[in-house]
Amino acid sequence: MSTALKIESETVRVPAVVRGARTVRVALAGCGTVGGELVRMLHHGAAETRARHGLRFELVRVLVAHGERPRPDELDRARLTTDLDAFLAAAAEADVVVEAIGGIEPALSIARAALARGKRLVTANKALVAAHGPELAALARRHGGRLDFESAAAGGIPVVRALRESLSLTGIRSVRGILNGTTNYILSRLEDGWTFADALADAQARGFAEADPSRDLSGEDAADKLRILAWLAFGTEPARLDVRRRGLKQGADRLARAARALGGAVRFVAEAARVPEGIVASVEPVLVAAGGDLGRTRDEENLVIVESEWNGRIRLGGPGAGGGPTASALLGDLVRPAQRHRAPRRAAAPAVPDRRAHAWAIAVERGTSAEEALRATLDRVEVDVDRIVRGEGVSVKRTRPVAWPRIGLALRALEVQGLSPGILRVEG
Amino acid sequence: MSTALKIESETVRVPAVVRGARTVRVALAGCGTVGGELVRMLHHGAAETRARHGLRFELVRVLVAHGERPRPDELDRARLTTDLDAFLAAAAEADVVVEAIGGIEPALSIARAALARGKRLVTANKALVAAHGPELAALARRHGGRLDFESAAAGGIPVVRALRESLSLTGIRSVRGILNGTTNYILSRLEDGWTFADALADAQARGFAEADPSRDLSGEDAADKLRILAWLAFGTEPARLDVRRRGLKQGADRLARAARALGGAVRFVAEAARVPEGIVASVEPVLVAAGGDLGRTRDEENLVIVESEWNGRIRLGGPGAGGGPTASALLGDLVRPAQRHRAPRRAAAPAVPDRRAHAWAIAVERGTSAEEALRATLDRVEVDVDRIVRGEGVSVKRTRPVAWPRIGLALRALEVQGLSPGILRVEG
Repeated sequence: MSTALKIESETVRVPAVVRGARTVRVALAGCGTVGGELVRMLHHGAAETRARHGLRFELVRVLVAHGERPRPDELDRARLTTDLDAFLAAAAEADVVVEAIGGIEPALSIARAALARGKRLVTANKALVAAHGPELAALARRHGGRLDFESAAAGGIPVVRALRESLSLTGIRSVRGILNGTTNYILSRLEDGWTFADALADAQARGFAEADPSRDLSGEDAADKLRILAWLAFGTEPARLDVRRRGLKQGADRLARAARALGGAVRFVAEAARVPEGIVASVEPVLVAAGGDLGRTRDEENLVIVESEWNGRIRLGGPGAGGGPTASALLGDLVRPAQRHRAPRRAAAPAVPDRRAHAWAIAVERGTSAEEALRATLDRVEVDVDRIVRGEGVSVKRTRPVAWPRIGLALRALEVQGLSPGILRVEG
Repeated sequence: MSTALKIESETVRVPAVVRGARTVRVALAGCGTVGGELVRMLHHGAAETRARHGLRFELVRVLVAHGERPRPDELDRARLTTDLDAFLAAAAEADVVVEAIGGIEPALSIARAALARGKRLVTANKALVAAHGPELAALARRHGGRLDFESAAAGGIPVVRALRESLSLTGIRSVRGILNGTTNYILSRLEDGWTFADALADAQARGFAEADPSRDLSGEDAADKLRILAWLAFGTEPARLDVRRRGLKQGADRLARAARALGGAVRFVAEAARVPEGIVASVEPVLVAAGGDLGRTRDEENLVIVESEWNGRIRLGGPGAGGGPTASALLGDLVRPAQRHRAPRRAAAPAVPDRRAHAWAIAVERGTSAEEALRATLDRVEVDVDRIVRGEGVSVKRTRPVAWPRIGLALRALEVQGLSPGILRVEG
């Protein structure tokens, strides 16, 4: 508790307030795909961050490996450094250190230095958390800092927070899903009949797969994420989790053909489950139902399914990688502890009536006077019908896109005539 | 900041520690389906809560409306009271007040009293948060307490936390989904050809629908949840959100027939979306694709889809109601602030090798010597084949359930012969 007091009192001693917003000084290590996107989000989201959360983020220093590479226009070049010591000195004065480099070193040194000084560390680094998470968490506890890593597993899907806070006491039985977008993209192309080589080349051309995709294909990337999720779900030391791992290879197109022959689909499934003896884990190609949750997760999407005794089956799906989603998750970790548990501060957007145009399906019983009344009424309020369908005793008129007030008008006109048609908004 | 200092120092002054666990005194208002399940979870999860989070929850007082109703065996009857004033007096001495009564009064009085004393309030009450959320949040801010309400929308799906913390700065465009399990259950039965009256009666018999299901059918229940989600997503004052609401009525079976005629499905969709002028919102029957995310959400399941500029499309699905999921969400809110941001404290479950039996599909190129080698090898390691399928140039043997080590043995034996078959674990 004394450390918590210390953090609070430090904040009280240095009340850097700018126009009603509290300033949070951020030292950022890494400015590639993820770090660069975070720089852009901090810049373009500044007004919203201030209005919604009362916070102003200030980038005090940005560590990069290569000084000459192109960087986001939004980045003040004076903040850039390629010198680790200079960065660590700046980080010691910052409120929070964001690590978006990846790999073990120098990420581990940066993380240890930040946490040993009681700083907040936010990291997107799955390899780091999978190998050193408990050590870093212990450092954070000991020195009154904190460690957040929502972006280290499943990108923009808020599964780390869900496991850590919402679901940790629900009696979790298993956590499984699709944790690697590259291999899921490749499997989706194999499903479409492509060769493995073409699918891999396409994934690389689209930027999902690295020039060296071996960590994706071997399952090491998914295994690191699974280690993190198993740590949160079951308390199992991540570095000691024994993950049975069978990767995707050239022969994967044969797996896709085999799955089709069996009437299913192949997915590269990561799973950690509780058995009576402890926790088992695997990352391997699995035959799944084509129309099930896993089978329907295609392209670079990720999906995490958490099954528990008290809470049933929770599914969390979305983009598992990419600069935007990963940087979004970093930003959430940046905002959260500063925001604490506060609800939004003001009405950021007023409520207004819905004037958007939709198609509507209006159904009446077939072969009744309602059919003719509906036609006449839609004519009168000038709503165009683009399709009429009859079946199962109903006659359905599908309108061209039109805003609700006009359909509401038609509805009231019909009700005056004693008719009550069924009305569906047509999605999409 | 001074209020935060105050909370921390109070905690320091009263270090109620029991065998290494910090005691959290809980006053619980309401002991029906949700409150009763929370009592059971607190009791049966006590060891896990202590091990994982270093916390011990003590129920100091439980307010009920009817003293003579049956209560969980796990509840100490001496804690029960039907006297609101006695409860408020006990709540004033508790660390956290849990409100699981529902409706506006006396829930609002309890919430105001708790927050005005700087207590933490955890509530499952959607009507309360939809009508008074901002007022209660302001009270929490002013007095250094906190307000949590994960269980007030979408039950066990951690969408409140996701919107509040992870996704609030991703540039949310829309939040939509299925927020009422009762109506989704009814629509699923209509889809199966049932009448509306039979579907409703079945929902009531299964405990999804209340004796008076009018708030479910009218969409008021979903609209309250939508107001909460729109508040978190857009900062829009929930009580002022203008929700276009068209409920499900007897005529809903005609909607189901119309949807089938159009090749889709009906879902009762709640949606809040950003348009240039502000936020629009609706709860109404919508024609959706039968195979899409909404169409595939059946029975009492809920689904929330959040679309945003930076983070794409996030889907959160699971049980939206029921005692277990709702109480799970309450428990998450109870644990979280006490836990702060700590990672699990110890290896709750050790990692062990996976000895579970699965069926496996083993594929080799058809019409090659590999076919015979595979058959002979599976015989040798005593793995039974229950199905052989041929197609697209492959021959696939599906085994009876057997644990990995034995299949791994077969695989190595084949590799020694220069063969590399494709292997899929068969799910389910």
